[in-house]
Amino acid sequence: YLETLEGKYGQEGEKLIYKFTDHGGRKIALRYDLTIPLSRVIAMYPEIIKPFKRYQIAPVWRADRPQKGRYREFFQCDVDIIGSKSMLCDAEVIAVGYHCLKKIGFNDFIIKINNRKVLNGIVNLMGIDENKNHILFRIIDKLDKIGIKGVENELMDTDFSRDKISGFLNLLQIEKKGDELLFELENKLESIPQGLEGIKEIREISNYLAGMGVEAGHYEFDPTLARGLDYYTGPIFEAVLKRPKIGSIIAGGRYDNLIEIFSKQGSPATGISIGLERIITAMEELGMLPLSSTVSRVFVTVFSRETTRHSLAVASQLRLSGINTEVALKEGKLSKQLTYANNKGIPVCIIVGPDEIGSGKIVIKDMINNRQEETSSDNLINRVEKILENNV
Amino acid sequence: YLETLEGKYGQEGEKLIYKFTDHGGRKIALRYDLTIPLSRVIAMYPEIIKPFKRYQIAPVWRADRPQKGRYREFFQCDVDIIGSKSMLCDAEVIAVGYHCLKKIGFNDFIIKINNRKVLNGIVNLMGIDENKNHILFRIIDKLDKIGIKGVENELMDTDFSRDKISGFLNLLQIEKKGDELLFELENKLESIPQGLEGIKEIREISNYLAGMGVEAGHYEFDPTLARGLDYYTGPIFEAVLKRPKIGSIIAGGRYDNLIEIFSKQGSPATGISIGLERIITAMEELGMLPLSSTVSRVFVTVFSRETTRHSLAVASQLRLSGINTEVALKEGKLSKQLTYANNKGIPVCIIVGPDEIGSGKIVIKDMINNRQEETSSDNLINRVEKILENNV
Repeated sequence: YLETLEGKYGQEGEKLIYKFTDHGGRKIALRYDLTIPLSRVIAMYPEIIKPFKRYQIAPVWRADRPQKGRYREFFQCDVDIIGSKSMLCDAEVIAVGYHCLKKIGFNDFIIKINNRKVLNGIVNLMGIDENKNHILFRIIDKLDKIGIKGVENELMDTDFSRDKISGFLNLLQIEKKGDELLFELENKLESIPQGLEGIKEIREISNYLAGMGVEAGHYEFDPTLARGLDYYTGPIFEAVLKRPKIGSIIAGGRYDNLIEIFSKQGSPATGISIGLERIITAMEELGMLPLSSTVSRVFVTVFSRETTRHSLAVASQLRLSGINTEVALKEGKLSKQLTYANNKGIPVCIIVGPDEIGSGKIVIKDMINNRQEETSSDNLINRVEKILENNV
Repeated sequence: YLETLEGKYGQEGEKLIYKFTDHGGRKIALRYDLTIPLSRVIAMYPEIIKPFKRYQIAPVWRADRPQKGRYREFFQCDVDIIGSKSMLCDAEVIAVGYHCLKKIGFNDFIIKINNRKVLNGIVNLMGIDENKNHILFRIIDKLDKIGIKGVENELMDTDFSRDKISGFLNLLQIEKKGDELLFELENKLESIPQGLEGIKEIREISNYLAGMGVEAGHYEFDPTLARGLDYYTGPIFEAVLKRPKIGSIIAGGRYDNLIEIFSKQGSPATGISIGLERIITAMEELGMLPLSSTVSRVFVTVFSRETTRHSLAVASQLRLSGINTEVALKEGKLSKQLTYANNKGIPVCIIVGPDEIGSGKIVIKDMINNRQEETSSDNLINRVEKILENNV
């Protein structure tokens, strides 16, 4: 229902929700993300044992202008932990994202970590009205896209005073990095308990990440990270590639007050969302995607209608051994069948004709080394596996 | 776009399409099935090497009345072969469905096979106007739901003559089964080439299915199978469970003329669609779904904030060995942590406290047999794997 989604994604997100009226006159909408639906489910089923961990891979829809790696329908891969305030949860979901990127083959990426409490602390320190935080956060969140000058210009269009804006930007722009920057901010925020709590949480997450095998250099504190969504309450994170520049490929944060919108009995929660299409786009650009037009490892030829059953039996034998196998879908010229297998990049062909059936032999053709050999049915699997191994 | 889907699903299907106008004023619709989108894609990319095989698991939407195993949003698992008229393709997609059901654990199911050409042949034989076939097919398709009396009543409401209707029903109702029935119909249809072709195709498919390891008794010719969709041109199939009665769990057929709607260069095609929700509903009713509230095999306790890193290291070691592992998300009472693991049904717990860290030992608790043992870090994986094996 539309009302489940409304008022959760901030002013700009709200505009991107696909909404319509169904045949029964109900106001409904397409999923904008997987976090709100998860929160509703958690609220509806209080019997779920907590802490509750789940992943979900599903399409979501946004009425946005399509661009590189960004579509109106796209897949999010979400990992969330519900029911614990421990920073171990935040570290764990970040670690899942890290290990996913590593396993796919990415090396040049950085996971930026910040905390809404630190941002709130800075806002307090500057004497900016806390109710206007979200305006500020949404503008800083564009830093990567529009640069510091762009952010400054957009801030000038708000009713924050020039002094406050430059003070705020100065604090974010501290020329130090990592631990040193964290220490610097800690000193500045010493009178703001919320800010200090945020810094403590960032330190705790960093400590756990190291314990979870996340390599140093792949995560860093970044006080300019803001995230646009309204519902974050604590740590926020975002993974970006050094190249290509296609925005964040993982994003997330803690949303301790979201579930209580749907039920009296709230629950703290944190999670990440991995953007599948952006990752695929980046992998394509970086040449990380293996170009394969098939998953078949073996192609079994068919000589004639009468010998089809024999070819099928050979294919069944291979498939039962876990080898992905195709059978020619039409009897006919052997050369034509082999050309098809070759065009598809299938590395091994099996030739089964009346001669082979008569002699009890099977011909195996190694398409990559252009060699062929004869073998008995008993030896088929063995020989095929050997050729496939050598071809890897 | 709505126009892609319109006019493809028959009168009744058409009503169930979710359609709306988007922000840009475009008339759009939600996927009704995966076959039409596939056909559009094939038409758009003629460079795809054929025969082309693909599977796809994705949600589709129908504005239908929800009922047992039937929802407005549900998942279809489709398997299709594009670009070949060979009955090997039809047999192969049926065999995929068969092997899927077997692998999941179903034994009491039957795959019904019929052919639109046979139905057309019968219609011709009865002298019924071929343009009204679809009316006829849609009514027979309800046979399982409304029974033969219901079908007869609905046919009486059409403008077919009473004579033709009873002749038609008599032909379908021949009291024989399988090969014998096929032979009977072959005799009756001897003057109708289309009908004979349909019978030949059914025989060919049956022959191939046997070659593909599909057990006899799991498929049979059923002349009353009609399938409601407009786009089928040849063989049609449907898998049903003996119990529970929840309609077909797999359905499909050949659609040789569908792709040419989207491009001049058409392509023959056939495929099946596996209904995920119905299968899950049936498995629940038959007690085939293992009741597990977690995939975690091991739970690592956390003694104190200071020993957390140590617990994380143990968890990393287990995870690197491919063992699904959870770490307590909060230090605190050991009994509370063990209760959580127990409630979740996690079979093995690891206790890591200051004593264990000091002595270099780790305590492994077998939750199922309520036994515990001490081991060294080097032996951890070995011992855990042994306990998990014994617990299977």
